[in-house]
Amino acid sequence: MRDLFSSLLLLFVPVLVVQAQKPLNLMPMPASIQVGSGQLVINPSFSIGIDGAQDPRLQQNAQMFIRALRAQLGFTSLDLKMVDSAHAALVVHADQPGKAVQELGEDETYSLEVTPSGAKINAPTTLGAMRGLETFLQLVQVTPEGFAIPAVTIRDQPRFPWRGLMIDVSRHFMPLDVLKRNLDGMAAVKLNVFHWHLSDDQGFRVESKKFPKLQELGSDGQYYTQAEVRELIAYAHDRGIRVVPEFDMPGHTTAWFVGYPELASGLGPYQIERKWGIFDPVMDPTEEETYKFLDKFIGEMAQVFPDQYFHIGGDEVNGKQWDANPRIQAFKQSHGIKTKQELQAYFSRRVQKIVSKHGKIMLGWDEVLQPGIPNDVVVQTWRDETPSPTIAAKQGFRALAAYGYYLDLNWPAARHYLYDPIGTVSLTPEQTKLVLGGEACMWAEYVSPDTIASRIWPRMAAIAERFWSPASVTDVNSMYQRMGAISGWLEWLGLNHNSEYRPMLQRIAGSDDVSALRVLADVVEPVQDYLREEYAPVPATSFTPIDRVIDAVRPESETAREFNQMADAIIAGRASADVQAQVRNLLITWRDNDAKLRTLGSQSFLVQEVMPLSASLSQAANAGLQALDYLERREHAPDEWRTQQIAVLADAGQQKAQLLLMAVPGIEKLVEATAGR
Amino acid sequence: MRDLFSSLLLLFVPVLVVQAQKPLNLMPMPASIQVGSGQLVINPSFSIGIDGAQDPRLQQNAQMFIRALRAQLGFTSLDLKMVDSAHAALVVHADQPGKAVQELGEDETYSLEVTPSGAKINAPTTLGAMRGLETFLQLVQVTPEGFAIPAVTIRDQPRFPWRGLMIDVSRHFMPLDVLKRNLDGMAAVKLNVFHWHLSDDQGFRVESKKFPKLQELGSDGQYYTQAEVRELIAYAHDRGIRVVPEFDMPGHTTAWFVGYPELASGLGPYQIERKWGIFDPVMDPTEEETYKFLDKFIGEMAQVFPDQYFHIGGDEVNGKQWDANPRIQAFKQSHGIKTKQELQAYFSRRVQKIVSKHGKIMLGWDEVLQPGIPNDVVVQTWRDETPSPTIAAKQGFRALAAYGYYLDLNWPAARHYLYDPIGTVSLTPEQTKLVLGGEACMWAEYVSPDTIASRIWPRMAAIAERFWSPASVTDVNSMYQRMGAISGWLEWLGLNHNSEYRPMLQRIAGSDDVSALRVLADVVEPVQDYLREEYAPVPATSFTPIDRVIDAVRPESETAREFNQMADAIIAGRASADVQAQVRNLLITWRDNDAKLRTLGSQSFLVQEVMPLSASLSQAANAGLQALDYLERREHAPDEWRTQQIAVLADAGQQKAQLLLMAVPGIEKLVEATAGR
Repeated sequence: MRDLFSSLLLLFVPVLVVQAQKPLNLMPMPASIQVGSGQLVINPSFSIGIDGAQDPRLQQNAQMFIRALRAQLGFTSLDLKMVDSAHAALVVHADQPGKAVQELGEDETYSLEVTPSGAKINAPTTLGAMRGLETFLQLVQVTPEGFAIPAVTIRDQPRFPWRGLMIDVSRHFMPLDVLKRNLDGMAAVKLNVFHWHLSDDQGFRVESKKFPKLQELGSDGQYYTQAEVRELIAYAHDRGIRVVPEFDMPGHTTAWFVGYPELASGLGPYQIERKWGIFDPVMDPTEEETYKFLDKFIGEMAQVFPDQYFHIGGDEVNGKQWDANPRIQAFKQSHGIKTKQELQAYFSRRVQKIVSKHGKIMLGWDEVLQPGIPNDVVVQTWRDETPSPTIAAKQGFRALAAYGYYLDLNWPAARHYLYDPIGTVSLTPEQTKLVLGGEACMWAEYVSPDTIASRIWPRMAAIAERFWSPASVTDVNSMYQRMGAISGWLEWLGLNHNSEYRPMLQRIAGSDDVSALRVLADVVEPVQDYLREEYAPVPATSFTPIDRVIDAVRPESETAREFNQMADAIIAGRASADVQAQVRNLLITWRDNDAKLRTLGSQSFLVQEVMPLSASLSQAANAGLQALDYLERREHAPDEWRTQQIAVLADAGQQKAQLLLMAVPGIEKLVEATAGR
Repeated sequence: MRDLFSSLLLLFVPVLVVQAQKPLNLMPMPASIQVGSGQLVINPSFSIGIDGAQDPRLQQNAQMFIRALRAQLGFTSLDLKMVDSAHAALVVHADQPGKAVQELGEDETYSLEVTPSGAKINAPTTLGAMRGLETFLQLVQVTPEGFAIPAVTIRDQPRFPWRGLMIDVSRHFMPLDVLKRNLDGMAAVKLNVFHWHLSDDQGFRVESKKFPKLQELGSDGQYYTQAEVRELIAYAHDRGIRVVPEFDMPGHTTAWFVGYPELASGLGPYQIERKWGIFDPVMDPTEEETYKFLDKFIGEMAQVFPDQYFHIGGDEVNGKQWDANPRIQAFKQSHGIKTKQELQAYFSRRVQKIVSKHGKIMLGWDEVLQPGIPNDVVVQTWRDETPSPTIAAKQGFRALAAYGYYLDLNWPAARHYLYDPIGTVSLTPEQTKLVLGGEACMWAEYVSPDTIASRIWPRMAAIAERFWSPASVTDVNSMYQRMGAISGWLEWLGLNHNSEYRPMLQRIAGSDDVSALRVLADVVEPVQDYLREEYAPVPATSFTPIDRVIDAVRPESETAREFNQMADAIIAGRASADVQAQVRNLLITWRDNDAKLRTLGSQSFLVQEVMPLSASLSQAANAGLQALDYLERREHAPDEWRTQQIAVLADAGQQKAQLLLMAVPGIEKLVEATAGR
């Protein structure tokens, strides 16, 4: 069925097709869109009906769809109804229900046909119909005639079957509600795997009934009960999302050892780790008791988590405890094991057998890819830049991309977006199928329940498009435009990634009037990669407040991105008078802002730390304004002046308070352009 | 204890006392504040301890305090701890626990002493200590040295023992979560009664096990189960809030009659009412079966709601069904009852006996104040402007003010704030004690779960101050300044009264870029009182979407309030150059805004309806700019010009799309000032 369907698809570059109309703010972009004429108006008497297979989950999704549509349109809770499909404005049809436990590769195909008189979603399974309902919601526009969706024919299916988001709940615990809001967001952009990083050095976050000291001593009381885990899994299933648990081992296990020091390779006692980094404690892979423990533990968790896949981590073992333990050294010798990699491979093989015995398929970070590991293990690649899953696929392993999608590194959306799990690497069709997809990863050293949404969203939506849409969908401008629209809609689902910005600035300022602080905050970004740690005056810990300007600002400055584009346009001589005026106004605002921010700077320690950055912005803007004067007078600036300004900008471009002024590159170009050609 | 304590109070006008420092953003203002020197810094190692009576509720409140403080400061979930009181930075002491079921008049006194080395809250009861913890949270400021609270000595107690918020959940059902967020806000401003308006013509919202058709046929499936009711009552109790249920009768009862038409005075069948207004259906007060039903029903509800008070409504009976029913007319004659008022009084007396039999004290809207009603009935006055509770108090009844505090009328905060439940009416000390306090009322014809927060908050905080603080606290400027600060803090409790504004404008605009729409929305207000209905082109119903500009704009325009104040300053000749520039910039922005809004106006039906308003703003601003030119040149304007402008402004001041341009009064004054003196 699926192959037949695929062969019928006509691939368009969708943005071109719809150019004449208001753009369709779809994300991820469907595989095929044909825009018709006219639109289907959605007023309070709009109704939805279901035909095809009887499936309570589809009924429930139709109700969720109604709630979402009401929220999106501001309709009241009495309008929009489910009716008999013969009388419905939107008819949803699925040939058969989805699986009770959602499976990897389960069919997500759907079609959506909209005419001015009605709409129909058709899918082989409930899961596909659910994806179609999300597309319908994204199509809703406000028009002169009311809310409406344009006449359109969409045929759609995902490029990759595994499209995930990993959230680390160990470094900072995230309440169930926070996870649920993120699952809502995931469903909206058609992601289908929630990878739950449940244990690490800083906390063990699930209740074990067999080994209760894991959570009792390893979590500071911050863990999910098994009932809560089941609740979350059901919530995810309702939204077409699989839940894959990760228990990271043999390293990243300090929190296990607080209650069970006998599992460790070094002498205890252990305490929950409060710092960030890579630590020595590691399980003892030479002790049979370790495997007995893991057998019981994994057996218990295999019951709690119904998904077929089970992630055992396996990353970042530094091997120090192994080297320091004579018994382990003796074991290595007697077993002909030469390196820590080989010892870990031995451990991985043993754990794989346990996981398999309990009916699960093992998943691990790319360190598990060692000789002798069975090739049903799925490798999650995070270390190598070459489209990394291809390395594993070439060795015959199924693979998932994590490299390229680390949300905690504060990359711009475009950088994530343009990283493709396969890219231009040439793979056989069989190898290509081994690349299952990818996952965005939200490591949680520097996020709190208040801030996590803005670290994940809206960039996650762009990554979701990479995982779902045809590889040919790569127009960055279109991506940013659609991501902005989806971002607003996600707030109606309860995500607070936009709305928490102003309250955070108010807290920092200690004032309602955050205008000057916002001018600065709008144009800065946190340093990328792991430089936040490098530039920290004092290393952060579990106790460090998440309330600084670096925590409030957006991972990507839209203001700076737009400014830099406008600066490019000026240099290329294709800027309109309006663009020129906008650039000048921004520069004037920035130049004058430092003086306006000083009062707050003297009142708040959190503003105080960004005053050097504020001064730099003012100086940089001053350089930009002078450059603009030269350019507008079509005059070359003296070399000496330019040298001075470049020095000013080099300083302005340095991190301060772990923040970067993102408009500096655009200003630099303006200054350099005063040299003429 | 309480009297002794009161006599020790030194009353200050607090705002004056603290003038030298950063203002204390307390709301309600405590009875007495003395500011000391220095401050207590709050860093992640801050701790709280409890001594005095053992009370689980105080323990729990200390935990809630920790969560709130973490949220307020952006601290992570591992810092701020409960410790032994000997080592705590903040020690909380209560002599004894509060009552298991909170009582009217239960002692809420507390003192709070802060020095640079520590803080102490002292209270006779847990309830008072809880109020002290809220005051502590409001005192937290950001300073150059970190977060801190100033050294201060506060002695505080409420002026009135009954300080409530009524929410109507019949006209629009409000999910439990929405109510909980409002209870959080209530606790933050020391309100102590949640009056739950649970039934009306448009819906019966509580599960009855004895009469299940009430909710089954009368609620569209939107009702609270008894378990949910108990959950909410427990949630309220944890926050020091009583829950008083209201079942409005004998009128406002259409929803009851859908399941039980035999209760009505007219022939059925009945359907849930979808319109707004006053309707004919009314209980039959002449039928003994009515009282048998109410006896069972009130008996059941008396068990579900533990509070000692029970509200039976009693408002707005139009008597038409009584007049039209010959049997009821005959009953009146045979019982010597002449008017519908007397017939309702007969009904009220009967119901009062039932309420009393089930151990409760009856509460009713002021219509129940009829001859023969027992004087333990509490009268909630809503119709008369003379500080209305005083009318009831003079007749020996305990009374609550509702008039003056109807949030749905869209009055500015100051108007609510300056309405005093007693005012200058002279009462004997005994009569004064009969005035129990007041309640703000949120009637829900025009609010949805999305918008209710912005209709209640932050104005509710100003009303809460009227109910708690000494009558002498009436400085409106101080009120607005503190209300603004508290408003920001309330968002950290989960209320979305500020943060839902932008998403609503985005929905209306169908665009991320709402700048031009916002310029207009910032300076308009919904028409006040009941004019929204009067000016509606089509009457609204239960099905009408709550998504128009009128639903998005704030009940009170801060921009307009500030503009009008600045215009006053200009006319009085006391405006600084900066203020003059601000006024000119605002007027230019408004004048030019209509052109900027036109594109959205052509794309969205929701923007389209405010385009005439936008044109008026532009014209009014143009008049204002010309006036400003005359004033700055110290030139008198020709009378003819002025006459023209006044006509323009008269038109601009007319409602359009049920909205008013609130800057027009300030512009009018500028124009009139061009006449000179």
